[in-house]
Amino acid sequence: MSGTLTIAGLGPGSEALVTPEVSAALSRATDVLGYAPYVARVTPRDGLTLHASDNREEIKRATEALRLAAEGRDVVVVSSGDPGVFAMASAVFEALEGAPQWHDLSIRVLPGITAMLGAAARIGAPLGHDFCAINLSDNLKPWATIEKRLRLAAEADFGIAIYNPRSVSRPDGFTRALEILREAGSSERLAIFARAISTPDEKIEAVSLRDARPEMADMRTLVIVCNSATRRVGRWIYAPRQAG
Amino acid sequence: MSGTLTIAGLGPGSEALVTPEVSAALSRATDVLGYAPYVARVTPRDGLTLHASDNREEIKRATEALRLAAEGRDVVVVSSGDPGVFAMASAVFEALEGAPQWHDLSIRVLPGITAMLGAAARIGAPLGHDFCAINLSDNLKPWATIEKRLRLAAEADFGIAIYNPRSVSRPDGFTRALEILREAGSSERLAIFARAISTPDEKIEAVSLRDARPEMADMRTLVIVCNSATRRVGRWIYAPRQAG
Repeated sequence: MSGTLTIAGLGPGSEALVTPEVSAALSRATDVLGYAPYVARVTPRDGLTLHASDNREEIKRATEALRLAAEGRDVVVVSSGDPGVFAMASAVFEALEGAPQWHDLSIRVLPGITAMLGAAARIGAPLGHDFCAINLSDNLKPWATIEKRLRLAAEADFGIAIYNPRSVSRPDGFTRALEILREAGSSERLAIFARAISTPDEKIEAVSLRDARPEMADMRTLVIVCNSATRRVGRWIYAPRQAG
Repeated sequence: MSGTLTIAGLGPGSEALVTPEVSAALSRATDVLGYAPYVARVTPRDGLTLHASDNREEIKRATEALRLAAEGRDVVVVSSGDPGVFAMASAVFEALEGAPQWHDLSIRVLPGITAMLGAAARIGAPLGHDFCAINLSDNLKPWATIEKRLRLAAEADFGIAIYNPRSVSRPDGFTRALEILREAGSSERLAIFARAISTPDEKIEAVSLRDARPEMADMRTLVIVCNSATRRVGRWIYAPRQAG
C-alpha cells in the first residue's frame, strides 16, 4: 500500500505563522525529513520518526522521502518559509523526474509564509508594489546570471527581496550585489535587513543602500532593497500603490 | 485610551491556510473592515462589528480603520492573500502618512499566504527559482511602466506571477501582456492559470504561452508565466534549482 509525501512550509519561525493544514499534516506524519534546524521545530511523539540531515543534501533527502512514501509511510518534508521558494519542493520534483516508478505517488505541497512576507509585515509594506525575489546563492547557477538579474531588477524599479545573501562559504557575492545595485543608480533606495524574523533572535534595520554594509547580512538574513518610491512614515516603511 | 489596528491576510480562501496569529487577532477584534467578500469570511459574533465596503474604497476604508483604532477600538483590516502584496497594507500607510496625529497608534501587519504561493503549491514548484510579481492593474500606475517591467522580467528569465490580470473594466491589458511576453521570445514558456485557489471554485490549468488566450483569466485568476527552464514531471510543473 502506498503512502503519502507532503512538502510543507513551516513559515519563518513562530508557531503562530504555521498554517493549520501544515500542523495537521505533521500530526498525521510517520516520518519528517529536513534540514536539522527545521526538523528541530517538530514536536517528537510516539510513532513519528524524525530524520534530520545537512543543508547540502537536498536531492538525497528528497529521494529518501519518496522511497519512504513508496513503502507506505506518511512522509512530511519540512522547509522553513514556503517550500516552493528556494526550498525543498523543487528538489523533490527533480528527484521525482529521475524516478518514473514513483510518478503516481500521492504528493502534496503545502504553502507557508516565506521569509520576505514575514519581513515585509514586520516593517510595513515594502512589497506593496511590483517586486522580485532573487536567491543570491551561486551554488546552482552562474554568478553572471545573478548579476544580470540584479541589473534588470534595478532597471525595472522592482522591490528586490534577496534570499541567502551571505554565508561563511560565500562572503563576497553580497558585497558585489550591493555594488551592482549602487552602480545601477539605486544608492538612495532603502535597504531592509531582516534577521531571524518572528524568532527570539529577530532583528530588523533599514538604511539607505549607500550606507548598507555587507556585514549587516548573514545566512539568517533576508534583505529587501526597496523600489525608488518607497518611503518612511513614522517607524514604518512602505511602497506606495501608485509608484512607477 | 487608544486601541489597536491590525492589518491581516486571510490567505487565498481555505480556512486551513489562515495563520493562527490572524485567527487570534480576529477573535479579539471589535471591528473588522474590508472588501465585502473578504469580510464575509469572518464569523459574526456578539461584540464584533463587520464593516464591508467596495473594492475601490481603499483609502476611505484605511482612514476609517485608523479613526476607529484612535477611538479605542480593536480594529482588523482584512485582505485576501497577504496584506502587503497588492492589498490593504500600503493603503493604510498612505492614509497614515497624511495623519500625523495617528502615528503613535499601535499597528501590526500579519502576513498571509499570498495567491502566487497558493497557486504554485497546487501545481508543483513553478516559483522555485528567481521570480517576480507584477500587478497588471493600471488604475494606479501608467501602462507604460507595466510594459517595461514585463519586458525586463522576460529578459531576466524570471518566473512572472501576474496579479489582477483581467477584469470587466480592464479587458485589454492582459491581451497586450501576453503579446509582449511572446514578442520577448517567451512563447514556449509554460503559463499557469490558477483560479480561486483553495476554494470550492478552484480551477488550475497550464498551457504554453503560445496557446494562452486572454479569456483563460478573470478577476479571480492568478497567472504564473514560468521561466524558460520550467518543465513538467508527471502532473506537476516545477522550476529546477539550477536554472539560468
